[in-house]
Amino acid sequence: MRVDGRDIRPIWLNEDQQKVNVIDQRFLPHEFVVAELKTVYHVITAIQEMFVRGAPLIGITGAYGVYLAALNSPDPSIPESYLIEECRRLKAARPTAVNLAWGVDRVFSAMAGKEGAEKIEAAKKEAAEITEEEAENCRRIGEHGLSLVRAISVEKKGGTVNILTHCNAGWLGCIEYGTATAPMYTAHDNGIDIHVWVDETRPLNQGARLTAWELGKHGIKHTVIADNAGGHLMQHGMVDIVIVGTDRTTYTGDVANKIGTYLKALAAKDNGLPFYVALPSSTFDWTLRDGIREIPIEERDPDEIRYIQGLLHGKIENVLIPPAGSPAGNYVFDVTPSRLVTGFITERGICDASEEAILKLFPEKV
Amino acid sequence: MRVDGRDIRPIWLNEDQQKVNVIDQRFLPHEFVVAELKTVYHVITAIQEMFVRGAPLIGITGAYGVYLAALNSPDPSIPESYLIEECRRLKAARPTAVNLAWGVDRVFSAMAGKEGAEKIEAAKKEAAEITEEEAENCRRIGEHGLSLVRAISVEKKGGTVNILTHCNAGWLGCIEYGTATAPMYTAHDNGIDIHVWVDETRPLNQGARLTAWELGKHGIKHTVIADNAGGHLMQHGMVDIVIVGTDRTTYTGDVANKIGTYLKALAAKDNGLPFYVALPSSTFDWTLRDGIREIPIEERDPDEIRYIQGLLHGKIENVLIPPAGSPAGNYVFDVTPSRLVTGFITERGICDASEEAILKLFPEKV
Repeated sequence: MRVDGRDIRPIWLNEDQQKVNVIDQRFLPHEFVVAELKTVYHVITAIQEMFVRGAPLIGITGAYGVYLAALNSPDPSIPESYLIEECRRLKAARPTAVNLAWGVDRVFSAMAGKEGAEKIEAAKKEAAEITEEEAENCRRIGEHGLSLVRAISVEKKGGTVNILTHCNAGWLGCIEYGTATAPMYTAHDNGIDIHVWVDETRPLNQGARLTAWELGKHGIKHTVIADNAGGHLMQHGMVDIVIVGTDRTTYTGDVANKIGTYLKALAAKDNGLPFYVALPSSTFDWTLRDGIREIPIEERDPDEIRYIQGLLHGKIENVLIPPAGSPAGNYVFDVTPSRLVTGFITERGICDASEEAILKLFPEKV
Repeated sequence: MRVDGRDIRPIWLNEDQQKVNVIDQRFLPHEFVVAELKTVYHVITAIQEMFVRGAPLIGITGAYGVYLAALNSPDPSIPESYLIEECRRLKAARPTAVNLAWGVDRVFSAMAGKEGAEKIEAAKKEAAEITEEEAENCRRIGEHGLSLVRAISVEKKGGTVNILTHCNAGWLGCIEYGTATAPMYTAHDNGIDIHVWVDETRPLNQGARLTAWELGKHGIKHTVIADNAGGHLMQHGMVDIVIVGTDRTTYTGDVANKIGTYLKALAAKDNGLPFYVALPSSTFDWTLRDGIREIPIEERDPDEIRYIQGLLHGKIENVLIPPAGSPAGNYVFDVTPSRLVTGFITERGICDASEEAILKLFPEKV
């Protein structure tokens, strides 16, 4: 995406082909920091510490992790047992986003039957292909989602379309366009008047920090709100549609996404508003039926709740909110049951949130 | 309430009877600051800037504001026109909590037919009476609410009762016991094993800052969570009951409370969990039928969203979260429709969230 007149993606292979560069998103919007990942260890750290986040980007980072594993093999033959262990470590970095295992496994498979340096080349090629595919998937999600936004715009006779989103399912969490944001960018670029309510998305404020930054850089009207505010806005006709991303969606339509998504889906349902989830097919989990029971929900360091990071006198600082002695709980995702989801926006088109409709769109998965 | 071995209330008349002291709650839990209010201007500032907050406490502070108005009358006869204007200013300080007008009007009425110094004495007496009444109301709310908590404890065979609350409806926002917290204190003091999920309550974090502080000082087990987390906890059987306070409740049972309450009520309903609202009768608005359409919802400074206050190196600081150029919206309350409320816990007992049940408990309001 273009930022301040410069083309940028959240991840790219370094010129020397030996390192992977990522935007260290922990410091946005206040500082633009690029981190160099040289080894599997660096990749795991970048995923766990959330230099990179967002299901598609985690998948791509994992894919490049396998490339770095091959590149740095202590044995030039790159034994399968070594690769399997490195892939296991990579896949265990974070539990909820299914794209991580998907990306890692794809690159691992691409190396099958190759020898030595060929393996490295195959891994690099596959990781690059995944990257371009995901960018193209997001572009298509934008095209398909455009129809939804346009229909509302027409219904409102060209009046502003108010879209509410949660967390950051933008290009920072993907490659280009984003998932939930793709219809926003596409609608805006097609001259449709939109305004986005950006949930700040506690605890790590990916909405306030990342989505607001992305939208602002693209010139899209937006307003940052507390996560608590969405229901009130919906009750008062100030939201036309909710569009969010997802970290893992079962083939039955249950949606794991950033904690709090479920609450917005409930409010959309209660107010008769459309609630859409945008995702590339890599985010579907074709093995799970029951999202609430089966999708693993990550718990992270309670200090992510107790401390909040922001800018003070030009410096990024972390301030303590509750009493020093009060414990905190940090559940990172929740699962929105399919009954609350109006539909999915995928690279192949839009479908209802049902097993039947999803498998009709992806018949090869039956 | 006893804090660190000392009896404390959030508001008290100074020994010289010329000033009203309040805990300046903006700095809790990190600093314990007492502010002196000498004039109506100070009282309005304390209410608007949220030195004091919480519907019952706002009502009591307004009541003492009328006393200070009488005390500081530029004309010793304390003309009615002067008092009416001062009461109007006090009542306009914040729009949502109905207790403010209620407290101000009660003290104004108590001065009727009195002359000069008698007026001052009547105002002081009435403000003190309101204070004691509200403390007693909260005590009774605790007694009635105890039955609900005890029933769950019995059902769980003495297992921990998990209570979720939003914002601070504790003694800091009342006088003693609090409203939503009264059943917690009473249950704990009666030996029932409870644990409280404390919504941090963005934007001003009254849950993380105040409720966690109160509960911690009383030795009640609690965990601070993001406002986003409640739905997930309910889906997984980690919440037994939700108890919140309210800033204004219609006689039909619609509940205005801190923004985000509506989302928790939706989640409780979706998971078949009891959702109770604790309030003294002073928080009922006996004139409004339709909460969503009729209760005025305050909007406050967007910087309360953009900046978050916390402790850094022993000092209270405000850090900026979103990009400097991103606008924010700050809607302070929302309205939970009566259909989502299991019942009200009042000083007279527990009743369903319906006009019929409410008026049966308060027949003098018919």
